[in-house]
Amino acid sequence: MIINIPDNSDFSIHNIPFGIFSTTDRAPRAGVAIGDHILDLAAVAELDVFEFNTAVLEKDTLNDFIALGKSITKKVRKDIQHWLQEEDSILAGRPELFVLQSEAQMHMPVIIGDYTDFYSSIEHATNVGKMFRDPANALLPNWKHIPVGYHGRASSIILSGEPIYRPQGQTIPNGADQPVFGPSQRLDFELEMGFITGKNTQLGESIPTDEAEDYIFGMVLFNDWSARDIQKWEYVPLGPFLAKNFASHISPWIVTLEALEPFRVSGPEQQPKVLPYLEYNGEKNFDINLEVGIAPEGSEEQVVCRSNFKYMYWNMAQQLAHHTVNGCNINVGDLYGSGTISGKDEDSYGSMLELAWMGTKPLTMKDGTERKFIQDGDTVIMRGHSQKGDVRVGFGEVSAKVLPAK
Amino acid sequence: MIINIPDNSDFSIHNIPFGIFSTTDRAPRAGVAIGDHILDLAAVAELDVFEFNTAVLEKDTLNDFIALGKSITKKVRKDIQHWLQEEDSILAGRPELFVLQSEAQMHMPVIIGDYTDFYSSIEHATNVGKMFRDPANALLPNWKHIPVGYHGRASSIILSGEPIYRPQGQTIPNGADQPVFGPSQRLDFELEMGFITGKNTQLGESIPTDEAEDYIFGMVLFNDWSARDIQKWEYVPLGPFLAKNFASHISPWIVTLEALEPFRVSGPEQQPKVLPYLEYNGEKNFDINLEVGIAPEGSEEQVVCRSNFKYMYWNMAQQLAHHTVNGCNINVGDLYGSGTISGKDEDSYGSMLELAWMGTKPLTMKDGTERKFIQDGDTVIMRGHSQKGDVRVGFGEVSAKVLPAK
Repeated sequence: MIINIPDNSDFSIHNIPFGIFSTTDRAPRAGVAIGDHILDLAAVAELDVFEFNTAVLEKDTLNDFIALGKSITKKVRKDIQHWLQEEDSILAGRPELFVLQSEAQMHMPVIIGDYTDFYSSIEHATNVGKMFRDPANALLPNWKHIPVGYHGRASSIILSGEPIYRPQGQTIPNGADQPVFGPSQRLDFELEMGFITGKNTQLGESIPTDEAEDYIFGMVLFNDWSARDIQKWEYVPLGPFLAKNFASHISPWIVTLEALEPFRVSGPEQQPKVLPYLEYNGEKNFDINLEVGIAPEGSEEQVVCRSNFKYMYWNMAQQLAHHTVNGCNINVGDLYGSGTISGKDEDSYGSMLELAWMGTKPLTMKDGTERKFIQDGDTVIMRGHSQKGDVRVGFGEVSAKVLPAK
Repeated sequence: MIINIPDNSDFSIHNIPFGIFSTTDRAPRAGVAIGDHILDLAAVAELDVFEFNTAVLEKDTLNDFIALGKSITKKVRKDIQHWLQEEDSILAGRPELFVLQSEAQMHMPVIIGDYTDFYSSIEHATNVGKMFRDPANALLPNWKHIPVGYHGRASSIILSGEPIYRPQGQTIPNGADQPVFGPSQRLDFELEMGFITGKNTQLGESIPTDEAEDYIFGMVLFNDWSARDIQKWEYVPLGPFLAKNFASHISPWIVTLEALEPFRVSGPEQQPKVLPYLEYNGEKNFDINLEVGIAPEGSEEQVVCRSNFKYMYWNMAQQLAHHTVNGCNINVGDLYGSGTISGKDEDSYGSMLELAWMGTKPLTMKDGTERKFIQDGDTVIMRGHSQKGDVRVGFGEVSAKVLPAK
């Protein structure tokens, strides 16, 4: 191996995720994470080894690189895997091509045109239904027929590490008939994953489930911050708005669908049978271990949730087929959130709302303080990785601190 | 006047709206509509009369021009008004600067980053509530406290003139417990106006109502197509999705807020009193006459609705203050729909759903056919203009034909 890769690194030779980074001496450009390093793709391009217009690697977004299409991006990943493993490859003896991640600054990997959030975990939807509606009929009638989704705000999707302010807004106190204004008292995270599309469609075009994965470039971790008290008052009848659009965080490295191939698994059985346009063949779920930690200000992190992406009821192919069945067009760089990823066990729930069950079961932090929701000064960290034998492919983390309301 | 302007033109000397057009001999660029002509701003720039980097006028979108800020865009509009009226101005004797609208192709005036749709007509919200919920309590409890809004799809917003396919999707037949798939049977228009922001904010920043109009560059007509049957089945609990994102149309010319100044009027009294961040001073509604016509295939147009933008309960300043009160950031080129603009009279309702009252009062077309919703082959045309004495400022039209489902 050309470069040392620590054991258990998320960024193993099997991964090769893409991102945008900068250094003190050079502007944002494309790179891949390998171990603790970044392989500088703009610098590699100067060796004249790529057979495409490498200007796309010198941009501050991956959109144009991704838009080259999978035939090229897959080859780049394969070439890099090969070069990293061949002792006499073009990367050998060129330490200047590698930048320590600790010495680089990461940037948003793509310009997100449109952002859609789904609601595709049956455990999450059931928990929410039990809390807010009828425990005996927790799922709404449409839930098992439609991968329910809604549009979100693209402008406020930001990179891991950037702190956020607690949002302010209207809420309705229990029993009151007039709303009040102030900082949200029920700030929550949502453990999600997001996929990024790598191919455009035209308006009027639909993507069948068996072609959908050709349109997916890769995946990131996604924290879809939610202000539960604002949401409760505003969301009828047109859905969440200010409860969500103050910020969402993504992890910096886009893990390609190719890197996730070894971790395919079957999804849950779907009963009742879905409509034909939502039927699919093969294994379309992915076994990705997920965890969420909370680090109160000045205190150690406490892991509060361990979940897995494989629990999703609706898979990404179904989500994309549904999204486009009416002819809605998609673009390179669009982001699609999974919805909160909860499992069956109480410690696998993907939000504080569920973990602390509407505040009735507070969680205890390592410093002894309790949490019903997220407090000012808390840092929320999400991690994800797949593992099969010695093969590990991970996402790193998405992490952000909550500052007091402005 | 340097150029002849027909009486009653929407594009009078008082207007000067901005758009993007192309001709057979030159690529898309910025222009202003004047009478039946377009003044080619890229060509005017070659006369070296502007004191900013005129490269922004040669782009295929107005985003960078708008981003120069109102101090510049207002001066450009004033200069053009002056030059058009002075017989010996720099425009005199230069017919090559003017292109007939009939000989130009219009393009999307901006790249829309994010699109938000409000629901701000009390008459529309009341009508919908009467039809689908409780006629005695038609408005939901939050409606008079919040300018209710939700995020929509930016990618499928297209320019007037482009035909659309009838969307397909899941619907639930009356009394059934299993959905079916097929073309929407309840395709509807929504008569809306949209405003376009001209200034960015940072995440965490809020815009007070008395500064909101500084962030609004101008307005367009907006047809927010809706598939009522798809919406009914999908929208709980996260709002409309495929019922809306198959297409929305905007008119090509952005009418500036400056051009609309003479038409300010007071909005309806807001009771109960709104929260302080939604209070505002001055006249923030605009008197803009609106109409909708339906032209069945091969038949004359029938006007089915006459409404007015002044009816809006929530004004644009309140919408923008609300949108950003949680710190949500906005960008140049974002679009904000008003929601369906209905008035009190039955012929002022801004959608077929209301005009034909859920199909119970079909409208008769000029060819004798009836309409409960929009049929294949129908062209829907929306027009808008303000008038005060001799001063007329108009929007032209937004028009589109519905093709059969693919």
